[in-house]
Amino acid sequence: MTLQENQIYEIIGKVESINQGAHFCNTTVVTKDGEHINLKLEFEQIDALSMGKIYQFEALAIIKIEDELILKCKEITPIEDVLSSDELSQLLELFYVYAPVPLSEIKNGVESFLNRIDNVILKKVTETIYTEKRNKFYMHPAATKFHHAYVGGLSYHTLTMLKLIDGFLNVYSFLNKDLLYAATILHDMAKIEEISGVDGEYTTEGLLIGHLVMETIHIDEVARLFHYEQTEEILMLKHMILSHHGQLHFGSPKKPQTGEALLLWFIDTIDSKFTVLGESLEHTPDGTFTQMINVLDKMRFYKDKIKK
Amino acid sequence: MTLQENQIYEIIGKVESINQGAHFCNTTVVTKDGEHINLKLEFEQIDALSMGKIYQFEALAIIKIEDELILKCKEITPIEDVLSSDELSQLLELFYVYAPVPLSEIKNGVESFLNRIDNVILKKVTETIYTEKRNKFYMHPAATKFHHAYVGGLSYHTLTMLKLIDGFLNVYSFLNKDLLYAATILHDMAKIEEISGVDGEYTTEGLLIGHLVMETIHIDEVARLFHYEQTEEILMLKHMILSHHGQLHFGSPKKPQTGEALLLWFIDTIDSKFTVLGESLEHTPDGTFTQMINVLDKMRFYKDKIKK
Amino acid sequence: MTLQENQIYEIIGKVESINQGAHFCNTTVVTKDGEHINLKLEFEQIDALSMGKIYQFEALAIIKIEDELILKCKEITPIEDVLSSDELSQLLELFYVYAPVPLSEIKNGVESFLNRIDNVILKKVTETIYTEKRNKFYMHPAATKFHHAYVGGLSYHTLTMLKLIDGFLNVYSFLNKDLLYAATILHDMAKIEEISGVDGEYTTEGLLIGHLVMETIHIDEVARLFHYEQTEEILMLKHMILSHHGQLHFGSPKKPQTGEALLLWFIDTIDSKFTVLGESLEHTPDGTFTQMINVLDKMRFYKDKIKK
Amino acid sequence: MTLQENQIYEIIGKVESINQGAHFCNTTVVTKDGEHINLKLEFEQIDALSMGKIYQFEALAIIKIEDELILKCKEITPIEDVLSSDELSQLLELFYVYAPVPLSEIKNGVESFLNRIDNVILKKVTETIYTEKRNKFYMHPAATKFHHAYVGGLSYHTLTMLKLIDGFLNVYSFLNKDLLYAATILHDMAKIEEISGVDGEYTTEGLLIGHLVMETIHIDEVARLFHYEQTEEILMLKHMILSHHGQLHFGSPKKPQTGEALLLWFIDTIDSKFTVLGESLEHTPDGTFTQMINVLDKMRFYKDKIKK
Amino acid sequence: MTLQENQIYEIIGKVESINQGAHFCNTTVVTKDGEHINLKLEFEQIDALSMGKIYQFEALAIIKIEDELILKCKEITPIEDVLSSDELSQLLELFYVYAPVPLSEIKNGVESFLNRIDNVILKKVTETIYTEKRNKFYMHPAATKFHHAYVGGLSYHTLTMLKLIDGFLNVYSFLNKDLLYAATILHDMAKIEEISGVDGEYTTEGLLIGHLVMETIHIDEVARLFHYEQTEEILMLKHMILSHHGQLHFGSPKKPQTGEALLLWFIDTIDSKFTVLGESLEHTPDGTFTQMINVLDKMRFYKDKIKK
Amino acid sequence: MTLQENQIYEIIGKVESINQGAHFCNTTVVTKDGEHINLKLEFEQIDALSMGKIYQFEALAIIKIEDELILKCKEITPIEDVLSSDELSQLLELFYVYAPVPLSEIKNGVESFLNRIDNVILKKVTETIYTEKRNKFYMHPAATKFHHAYVGGLSYHTLTMLKLIDGFLNVYSFLNKDLLYAATILHDMAKIEEISGVDGEYTTEGLLIGHLVMETIHIDEVARLFHYEQTEEILMLKHMILSHHGQLHFGSPKKPQTGEALLLWFIDTIDSKFTVLGESLEHTPDGTFTQMINVLDKMRFYKDKIKK
Repeated sequence: MTLQENQIYEIIGKVESINQGAHFCNTTVVTKDGEHINLKLEFEQIDALSMGKIYQFEALAIIKIEDELILKCKEITPIEDVLSSDELSQLLELFYVYAPVPLSEIKNGVESFLNRIDNVILKKVTETIYTEKRNKFYMHPAATKFHHAYVGGLSYHTLTMLKLIDGFLNVYSFLNKDLLYAATILHDMAKIEEISGVDGEYTTEGLLIGHLVMETIHIDEVARLFHYEQTEEILMLKHMILSHHGQLHFGSPKKPQTGEALLLWFIDTIDSKFTVLGESLEHTPDGTFTQMINVLDKMRFYKDKIKK
Repeated sequence: MTLQENQIYEIIGKVESINQGAHFCNTTVVTKDGEHINLKLEFEQIDALSMGKIYQFEALAIIKIEDELILKCKEITPIEDVLSSDELSQLLELFYVYAPVPLSEIKNGVESFLNRIDNVILKKVTETIYTEKRNKFYMHPAATKFHHAYVGGLSYHTLTMLKLIDGFLNVYSFLNKDLLYAATILHDMAKIEEISGVDGEYTTEGLLIGHLVMETIHIDEVARLFHYEQTEEILMLKHMILSHHGQLHFGSPKKPQTGEALLLWFIDTIDSKFTVLGESLEHTPDGTFTQMINVLDKMRFYKDKIKK
Repeated sequence: MTLQENQIYEIIGKVESINQGAHFCNTTVVTKDGEHINLKLEFEQIDALSMGKIYQFEALAIIKIEDELILKCKEITPIEDVLSSDELSQLLELFYVYAPVPLSEIKNGVESFLNRIDNVILKKVTETIYTEKRNKFYMHPAATKFHHAYVGGLSYHTLTMLKLIDGFLNVYSFLNKDLLYAATILHDMAKIEEISGVDGEYTTEGLLIGHLVMETIHIDEVARLFHYEQTEEILMLKHMILSHHGQLHFGSPKKPQTGEALLLWFIDTIDSKFTVLGESLEHTPDGTFTQMINVLDKMRFYKDKIKK
Repeated sequence: MTLQENQIYEIIGKVESINQGAHFCNTTVVTKDGEHINLKLEFEQIDALSMGKIYQFEALAIIKIEDELILKCKEITPIEDVLSSDELSQLLELFYVYAPVPLSEIKNGVESFLNRIDNVILKKVTETIYTEKRNKFYMHPAATKFHHAYVGGLSYHTLTMLKLIDGFLNVYSFLNKDLLYAATILHDMAKIEEISGVDGEYTTEGLLIGHLVMETIHIDEVARLFHYEQTEEILMLKHMILSHHGQLHFGSPKKPQTGEALLLWFIDTIDSKFTVLGESLEHTPDGTFTQMINVLDKMRFYKDKIKK
Repeated sequence: MTLQENQIYEIIGKVESINQGAHFCNTTVVTKDGEHINLKLEFEQIDALSMGKIYQFEALAIIKIEDELILKCKEITPIEDVLSSDELSQLLELFYVYAPVPLSEIKNGVESFLNRIDNVILKKVTETIYTEKRNKFYMHPAATKFHHAYVGGLSYHTLTMLKLIDGFLNVYSFLNKDLLYAATILHDMAKIEEISGVDGEYTTEGLLIGHLVMETIHIDEVARLFHYEQTEEILMLKHMILSHHGQLHFGSPKKPQTGEALLLWFIDTIDSKFTVLGESLEHTPDGTFTQMINVLDKMRFYKDKIKK
Repeated sequence: MTLQENQIYEIIGKVESINQGAHFCNTTVVTKDGEHINLKLEFEQIDALSMGKIYQFEALAIIKIEDELILKCKEITPIEDVLSSDELSQLLELFYVYAPVPLSEIKNGVESFLNRIDNVILKKVTETIYTEKRNKFYMHPAATKFHHAYVGGLSYHTLTMLKLIDGFLNVYSFLNKDLLYAATILHDMAKIEEISGVDGEYTTEGLLIGHLVMETIHIDEVARLFHYEQTEEILMLKHMILSHHGQLHFGSPKKPQTGEALLLWFIDTIDSKFTVLGESLEHTPDGTFTQMINVLDKMRFYKDKIKK
């Protein structure tokens, strides 16, 4: 991009870094063509930006010392406020890696399970939170690294977990389907606030509170709207969310103490491992080992050469 | 206590056990004279009782099979609704072990620290919760076993921790006194709902959620009343409460990540150990070892015979 | 049982204890009526007996010092050599606790999965071992304590695991169904030689080698019969058997390094936990906690009171 | 090496790398003069090669794009099939690092212990396996890194362990010398199949099964030839092999449960540490510390300056 | 023992318990005939007694309340001050369990190794400490429980360790024999002050400092007498003593960092295990398992039935 | 620095490296102007030098092969022998980083606590050791990395710990102030011999014995001068020094078993963490996280943006 003095430029870019010192403040963004552009900011503008998010920037080319032309950012607009829904979809695909299944299909899948919740309290609370977070839910990754690190990863992972539930209900009939569907849909929902975006970083709240407790607080708040906060359903739901990392040293303040909570942990663990394993085996020749896989104890797995 | 048929008896007793089967339901209470009395209950009456709490019971002596006289409970009234504040105090001292310092002195101490909080947000939220819980706060033990297991143990432990803070503020001036006072006052407040009473047991919510998260939820709810929920102060406070067990395997979902959070963990740990050690050394002859002390890694400590 | 001198008695009993000293040797057996009878043995007879097994004993009542009548064992016959198959079945039900599902139903289930194995090598080896062990397989417990400790426990646990497989095949299509069916059927088969009977004890070979390696050796031996020992199928199968305890510290000399091996560990773990949990919840009132459960980290689990 | 078009070259080289992609397949070998030569392969030829092994290659120089001359491999012959035993010995010394003691001396040492086994069963089985593996046994390293990583390392380590045994037999007379000699000779024998060669890599079977279980299976198979598989001797031997890593987390599926098994672990551990320590101290000046030593907990050891 | 008022009794007994309260003070002793006798003490007398030691007591029978006759201790004399050396030996054998080898034989063994130390510094220091402690050294147990818990256990264990050294010197010639002999003789010498006697208890100094550091201090003090404290020999010796528990969590403040220090740990560990194992196997029938053995990870060991 | 042949140069420099081989021996020093100069040494001269220490060197420029001029060291004098105390102070500040408080202020602080020790034994021993080590004590760092790694770090850390003590004495009155003051002053004193200088390295004695045991030996030796070695005070003091790392795996051979020993550990731990945290927060903008901090479990800490 060649600059001309005093020219105004309109740039659509994804925030790669935000840099701040005592006397300077700027951001580097990448455009859909892969160009990296640095924009000088006012200190107040910094709060408008999040890592990994896309914005439209209006910038003025001005001369700094030694005749160098730099871009001074004038205005920042979230891209969602600029483009129509269709334009947005097309643009996003240029910037991000997507889940291996179309987002619309994931959405249909998740909502079909949501609709199968019969318990009134669980349905109301789950639906309320789902509706509030829906848009971001289908754009969010499941993790910044390790597993499902792509647009829609969070919802894709959620749907695969939902699909595993019925197999267990058939064998262990004492389990409560409504609790399992509701808690699975909500279990990682607070990752939307814990991690700032698709290729983003942990937020301060994410680091200091964490998605387990953030989601538990949110469920309590929503339940309170409907005067459900003292019900057994909400207590079970909060316990499942809090305990779904299974062990204290994985960050759950309580270990699972109901069958549903225990199963939620198992299917979360299983899906985070087997989805990554499946993706890794696709790129591995028969009769050899995969690369070392982080979520699988940093081990290499073998792909057999049995004829199928 | 000798019973006469069809006589009505008024009994004041502390609930020792609640027993329930398919076809029976009764409670055993102990009176201030140490007599153990069994009372038959209706199934509905069971929810009115908590372990370790004192009630006034109205009971009718009736004949069961084989001429045995039994007491059928007619009415249950919480003792607080029956006695004046003074009468209540006198009665409680007959039933419970008390903190080694008068409760009024503990109260003055805690409130003097509360009054020294300057930050408006922290003061408002701490004061609101303190006021709401005050009465129970001064009656509650700090733990069911291990340390401070007596009436007022919770508030006594809180006051000792508060007294340790200033020594650190003098040396490490970067620490925020208001956060430390506020978080110390609130850190174990939810034990009131986690443990059912002075010699009581863990509640279901206590077991499934735990006082760290219960108090964090409550702070969030109270902050919301005053529209403080997005402030830095509330985030810091919630982080301190959540992390004050210091390590994931002690049940904190996050480790301390601020100086104040780290210090809260240290003074909580130190006071739980040194108060027990001091109590134990009192009963240990010079030149010998204490009994094994649970909170001190199940070790025995030596009391020296240096002349002082 | 009243004894008369010089009378011969025929006793059918299950061996409860075998006692041996420098100068004595005897066994205590329990009859179907629950009577405990002590029989004096010759030293040579001791090898004919196994703990928890049923025998027919022929014994002579003789006089020991001080006019006490004791029973001197004359002959020992395994009960299988005495009774017809039908009589045996009826007798066994008087002595042992059985799986909660009829053994014939379990058998049909397991064999239907066996028949669904398409791979020739896997089918041949699995079928050969299954046929050889079939009778004992349906009588054996899955463990001496912890879980499935009843007649048929081993086969019942195997069937439940088989039922869980298809739910995973639907979601993770890269998994090989034949390996999963074959390895699941065989995974605990060597427990038949590791544990001596229904309420029996570990054998010396069980303690020194263990069922993981014992079964791996057996698979190798059977594969050798058909010249399959160098095939990929047999290598995969042996790896799955060896690694199905998942972690070195649980006794697997290798951790799972294929998707099928990893899943075998997960479904083995899950079934050992959820079956016990289900059995325990059956005896737990709503709104209370189960007893401490060994296979669930010695924790108590909560049974909710949500109306279903 | 200068190539001429259409010329055939005969090359003796050790395989350094084998490279395979969708459309290419080649190997790099190093000659005794240290020259690195790349040879293009047919896909079928790849199975004839093992890492770290020496072969005679017949190769044709052909022209690839841009006039570059490349070597197309025509024929591959294992070097053992080309050279006489003497020629082979001389050649190997040019390619590999050797144990610090002549192989013939190691061989005499090991066989003298083998001859001292009196028990018929143990002697027969040990001798059979030793004879079958002898040639490779004296060429193999004991490990790919850590300790004894040179030609003959496996047999050298075995001999030093054998030499330590008598010192223990003198003090602890209850130990069985035949079990100790036999198990020591066999304990790492399956490393020949676990690791592919002197500077080789783990084989697939090595990674998925491991030398402990591989050797146990092999002992069982050889014992079966002589109908010894049910003897106490074979059970003891298999237990010693399986348990000689001493702890579950070091890969033994059973911990040592006989005196001989426990001692085997100790002398294996001790020799792996002290031999490395001795080698390291040789290169360390008096009064200073060695480099960090892997098998010694990554610690540095001190060499004293006491006059001797 | 029947008492008569005002009669003086002379009693030789081993102290079994020392009991002290605010208003009482007494000891129970056992005589060589196994009689248990209680003696009332003055508070000042208590310091003259140690648990497990033998004394001659002069006691007066006086009347306590209700005509009961009690023994008032008048004088206490250590038994060594009362009996000749021969009488003492005979008496001790009535009170204590002894090492399985005559003490004179142990003494000859230990001293022969002491005499083989060539290094002047090591010999001087070892000899000085040995001479100072000799008498107690041959009476002391090696531990209060776990292993070698009998008279002479300490010296017996030391001798067996000494016997193991030469086997290692033959194989690992870089090891320094003088350091190994000296450190082995001294390694547990401070147990004499750490544990109060044959069936005694830990002393206060034993609990607060421990024999590793106590012996290191003592070596430093003795070395200082001869102006050896800055020599390499003394540094090596102190390091070996401090590190001979091998790991920080076993109480060594430093891990072994010389070959001799490492070997000292190994032979100490090995002898503590194999001596106990040998003793346990003696009482175990062939083909069965020993009782659970504490020093062997609380495991049971198998005694095979191979014909020898 | 330009050299002239046969010229003598006087150089004041801090030793950066000492290099020794079979045929060479030299040192590199840095001058106050930051110039790095290499000096050839005689082998005997090497013992006169310590890493990180400052010396005056007299060196002769001579010609080596190929006309290169090199400096041959003629004489080495410790800088303390060359300069007056004032000159020395000025020089040192050019070479080293200093504690954030003037050393004279630290000295006054430490001595004021020393003077407050009332117990005669503790005062005598502490004073004797303090006087002997005083000069080095105020120059030494507290650690080579991690925390307080600057001139005076050791004394600065000691003073901050002393300042924390009174806050605890106010709350836990059973603690002995004299033991706490004395042990705090002495607790790390042997680091002077454990670490060779300000930017130095661990000494051989430091690595093989460690400052905990080195200081314990020294206290014992000094106590012996005054015949205090059997007193309770010295036992308590030695125990506190030995146990002040708190846990076996942190290198204490005994865990704290007195209240004073336990507190010493706590204030040592707390000060090592909070001083580093305070230093790190100074360079961290509000609302962001610090760099990863080693002594704080390699975590990053948050600096809040609350207005104060």
